[in-house]
Amino acid sequence: MHTLVPSDRVEHVCVFGRDGTKLGIIERLMLDKASGTVAYAVIKTGGLLGSHHHHPVLWRALRYDPRRQAFETELTLDDLRAGPSEFDEDAFDWGDRSRSYPHPHYWTV
Amino acid sequence: MHTLVPSDRVEHVCVFGRDGTKLGIIERLMLDKASGTVAYAVIKTGGLLGSHHHHPVLWRALRYDPRRQAFETELTLDDLRAGPSEFDEDAFDWGDRSRSYPHPHYWTV
Repeated sequence: MHTLVPSDRVEHVCVFGRDGTKLGIIERLMLDKASGTVAYAVIKTGGLLGSHHHHPVLWRALRYDPRRQAFETELTLDDLRAGPSEFDEDAFDWGDRSRSYPHPHYWTV
Repeated sequence: MHTLVPSDRVEHVCVFGRDGTKLGIIERLMLDKASGTVAYAVIKTGGLLGSHHHHPVLWRALRYDPRRQAFETELTLDDLRAGPSEFDEDAFDWGDRSRSYPHPHYWTV
């Protein structure tokens, strides 16, 4: 079994929560330029009336399920909503990981 | 200055060699699933009559130049051609980094 995965095969893949609910899709990965590591994945969830939210999730919180061809995580939609999102600018700076975040539990799943 | 970069802003970005020649574009990144690190970038170079070759290059061999909005590398087109490519299956297994490669210098630039 290969341990490598192409970035463009990760993007737009579905993510399911621990209760089996589809949370959304992986919109993109955020890479740490210096170390070449995946800092986090951005999960795009569907909102009301076609709106969307973007939530950062640690790479290690995602497991790929080859049967479903999707990612699984222990997080739920409620966990994502309780965490930082793109539209919560005060709580989350997309580029600065040195900040302390309001939901540190979120990062350690 | 942010140290994070979105994966979909890396893909399809131009790469220039040390002599200023455009080598090609970054086609995708290959990620190590377990560690969440970028194993290498795949550079797509243009060939004769519309053919293409795909060359693996270490992430740390690439530097982003914000002025040119492109990546730079110390490698040249000749270096890429001397290294493994997608069409050189005997020499390079895309998924297996435990193999010894015929051009180890390629990986340590």
